[in-house]
Amino acid sequence: MNFVGQDILSVDQFERADVERLFDVADAMEPFARRERITRVLQGAILSNLFFEPSTRTRISFGSAFNLLGGEVRETTEIRETSFAKGESLHDTARVLSGYSDVIVMRHPEPGSVGAFARASRVPVINGGDGPNEHPSQALLDLYTVRKEMRARGGGIDGLRIALIGDLKYGRAVHSLCKLLALFEGVRFNLVSPPGLEVSEEIAAALRRRGHAVNEGHELETGIHHVDIVYVTRTQEERFPSQEEADRYRGLFRLNQAIYTEHCEPNTVIMHPLPRDSRSQAQELDEDLNANPNLAIFRQTDNGVLVRMALFAMVLDVVGRVDADARPVTWYTGKRTPR
Amino acid sequence: MNFVGQDILSVDQFERADVERLFDVADAMEPFARRERITRVLQGAILSNLFFEPSTRTRISFGSAFNLLGGEVRETTEIRETSFAKGESLHDTARVLSGYSDVIVMRHPEPGSVGAFARASRVPVINGGDGPNEHPSQALLDLYTVRKEMRARGGGIDGLRIALIGDLKYGRAVHSLCKLLALFEGVRFNLVSPPGLEVSEEIAAALRRRGHAVNEGHELETGIHHVDIVYVTRTQEERFPSQEEADRYRGLFRLNQAIYTEHCEPNTVIMHPLPRDSRSQAQELDEDLNANPNLAIFRQTDNGVLVRMALFAMVLDVVGRVDADARPVTWYTGKRTPR
Amino acid sequence: MNFVGQDILSVDQFERADVERLFDVADAMEPFARRERITRVLQGAILSNLFFEPSTRTRISFGSAFNLLGGEVRETTEIRETSFAKGESLHDTARVLSGYSDVIVMRHPEPGSVGAFARASRVPVINGGDGPNEHPSQALLDLYTVRKEMRARGGGIDGLRIALIGDLKYGRAVHSLCKLLALFEGVRFNLVSPPGLEVSEEIAAALRRRGHAVNEGHELETGIHHVDIVYVTRTQEERFPSQEEADRYRGLFRLNQAIYTEHCEPNTVIMHPLPRDSRSQAQELDEDLNANPNLAIFRQTDNGVLVRMALFAMVLDVVGRVDADARPVTWYTGKRTPR
Repeated sequence: MNFVGQDILSVDQFERADVERLFDVADAMEPFARRERITRVLQGAILSNLFFEPSTRTRISFGSAFNLLGGEVRETTEIRETSFAKGESLHDTARVLSGYSDVIVMRHPEPGSVGAFARASRVPVINGGDGPNEHPSQALLDLYTVRKEMRARGGGIDGLRIALIGDLKYGRAVHSLCKLLALFEGVRFNLVSPPGLEVSEEIAAALRRRGHAVNEGHELETGIHHVDIVYVTRTQEERFPSQEEADRYRGLFRLNQAIYTEHCEPNTVIMHPLPRDSRSQAQELDEDLNANPNLAIFRQTDNGVLVRMALFAMVLDVVGRVDADARPVTWYTGKRTPR
Repeated sequence: MNFVGQDILSVDQFERADVERLFDVADAMEPFARRERITRVLQGAILSNLFFEPSTRTRISFGSAFNLLGGEVRETTEIRETSFAKGESLHDTARVLSGYSDVIVMRHPEPGSVGAFARASRVPVINGGDGPNEHPSQALLDLYTVRKEMRARGGGIDGLRIALIGDLKYGRAVHSLCKLLALFEGVRFNLVSPPGLEVSEEIAAALRRRGHAVNEGHELETGIHHVDIVYVTRTQEERFPSQEEADRYRGLFRLNQAIYTEHCEPNTVIMHPLPRDSRSQAQELDEDLNANPNLAIFRQTDNGVLVRMALFAMVLDVVGRVDADARPVTWYTGKRTPR
Repeated sequence: MNFVGQDILSVDQFERADVERLFDVADAMEPFARRERITRVLQGAILSNLFFEPSTRTRISFGSAFNLLGGEVRETTEIRETSFAKGESLHDTARVLSGYSDVIVMRHPEPGSVGAFARASRVPVINGGDGPNEHPSQALLDLYTVRKEMRARGGGIDGLRIALIGDLKYGRAVHSLCKLLALFEGVRFNLVSPPGLEVSEEIAAALRRRGHAVNEGHELETGIHHVDIVYVTRTQEERFPSQEEADRYRGLFRLNQAIYTEHCEPNTVIMHPLPRDSRSQAQELDEDLNANPNLAIFRQTDNGVLVRMALFAMVLDVVGRVDADARPVTWYTGKRTPR
């Protein structure tokens, strides 16, 4: 697809070549995100960060990505601040707010709402998550992380062996990642969930139709054998019909360093869409893994800034000009290792 | 008046010549608001957007206007974030917060509060709405839209024929617009409201004293005959003594394409201060008018950015320097027609 | 200490020489804060203003200080926006959010939370207040104000005579100011509180150990005799075990112009950490003092911007470059005397 001026609403918009082009641009953003260089290519441009549902990390990640390209950010963080309470339609809100910026990132609890907004908007809209439906930049940063981690280990996405662990029924991130991985060749999926939280039959069938190998199972330990990447998810408690039902699944699968050492190949990458649930009853990813260099979960969120910078640069058609007025950073940037 | 360093608190501050000068500056802001050019004339300046009551569109419109001139925006969006809860006076809050910025936009639910704040402020204050009292930038953008729409049709404000429709009792926007229109010559006002929601006798008398023609009525269809502009308002339900009383008026006047075609002259402009109430019981302005090119309601909100840029430029005395370091925009700005 | 890349968590980190260096840098920031000149030394840098508890003035003061150095600000203002609700640890939040900015200011209601966050952060963290524990930039701006006011009267901090008035038990600002003053020589402290709200014995003993004179008393009038500075505090009602207990202390000490005239030396400086409680039952600092030129309370908050600019400039190591691309301000800055 041609990114310029497009809305980014769904992973379904992407072909393999699109993803690869986007990721090459994301790679080029690294010196800026690492604060080695600054660019002002979007100086004077305005992002409207419209968050009708709270999401601090997604909001700040998009905002920082835009700032790193030199642009300004205007924000709204609460649905009750809006005119919806006075009966305004999403169409009117979109027509009005799209007059205030060059590009919009929108998050909204209602599936389809961001698409409806985009149809009435006069500037490109990026979906920052519309409830259980889509959150394409999350899926893209996950896949970008897969590519980067595999490259660092001498591999690629084709032929990848990946275990997806946990709540595969309600986990939006997993569904979208499956769709993007399906664009590549010969991926082997281990889909490991508690009984009742399996991925839907459509998703598994679609993967098989594209020629990928799909193994389903209910046991963590066997599921993480012989894979390159273990992608663990939180139980999406807020999407369950009731808290009682959610409670039945809490803490069923827990990956820790001992299990990793016993069952995983060396250098198996550990991913997670975050936040991970650190409450004692949950802990799907134990904190004793924090010292494991293959724990890629914070590299994932750092990669999110790169992917979002790339999306802005491609949608606003400034990829070729990013380097133009780039210059070295002159303040302290001695990034520290956490104590 | 001399705008430089002034507080903008009320439409009463404006004479005809002031309004016309402001609008000429607003016209000059158009290439910047359309993202054809960028200017950095206020680079380094800070706007404090102090919203002690939610108003997403007003807040973002002011913020974007300031960004378009190159300045930065610091914001607060909630009264409970402030020190009022600890017993701080508006005077102290103003003395403190006015040390953090070059200009302040303030919205507050209490009539007169913004004026009280401005008296203690050390930088200029623009009233972004103080409850039912004043919201001068809204009235100015309405009048600016009148001028622009009439010019596009070969006319002007003098001799204008305008129908004001709906809740004329509680509608702050209508009251302020009447005051500004009264500065011009020979306007004919059709004031059309449900019985009980008429404009106050003082307002009607003031218009007549300035030599304008005032017709009052209670019927939508006859009220919109032979006018240049139909200005429709929402029932200001939140200002009614009770919800029961507000409910009595909901949905009484509804302008739609069929009524427009039957009763309006061709090219009659349709305006509305927004938000319009799109709930099925209300719909004072039907969505079937969205395809009517004379529906100016979204041009109104776009004009708001121009008028607010002009206010900032005049109050901060940079009108003559806006073009100084202007340069072309180099990112994608292919503004789209909504689908 | 070497400020570069450091977390600023507590006044305990500071030696006398550190404070004096910081204040010299703050002095150099004055032309920028007064909008006589602008600098872009931090252009491209991002501050994350993470406020997990509301504090408009601290948040905007830090944000404006960063803007005045040319940087951008990303913010979060509410704890419920975060992933804590989904069980995320402070460690994970810090690891993630510290990937989005060059420096972080954090406020959080929990004592010690900011320190815990800083240990996991990959960029420097400045404590914007962690509940009843620490708020170092407040103590630094208070001491900076002491130095500036005393200099304007031909004196210094050594040998200072200061009365600390009011709630000395729960007043975090008082405790931190005592610690910083203790770094200097021969200070005389009059500690004046209602019975039951005395400063803790440890604090008084620590001051005496460092060779300072400490007088404790319960009477406002005698306490403010023969001092250079009267530092008045609000009763920290929100920290009391119950509202009933807090009510017992409301309005006990009230400084007004008549008491000042009768009991203070001429030119005695009046300070207060703000907000002052202006409700009729409280009024620890009467509004009739507003015309007194020795009332330094608004100079204090203005000084806060200077001190915070200095902290950013020192932590990010740009002190020597602030003047590099400085240029005159070209917009209206005719700061007004409040009416």
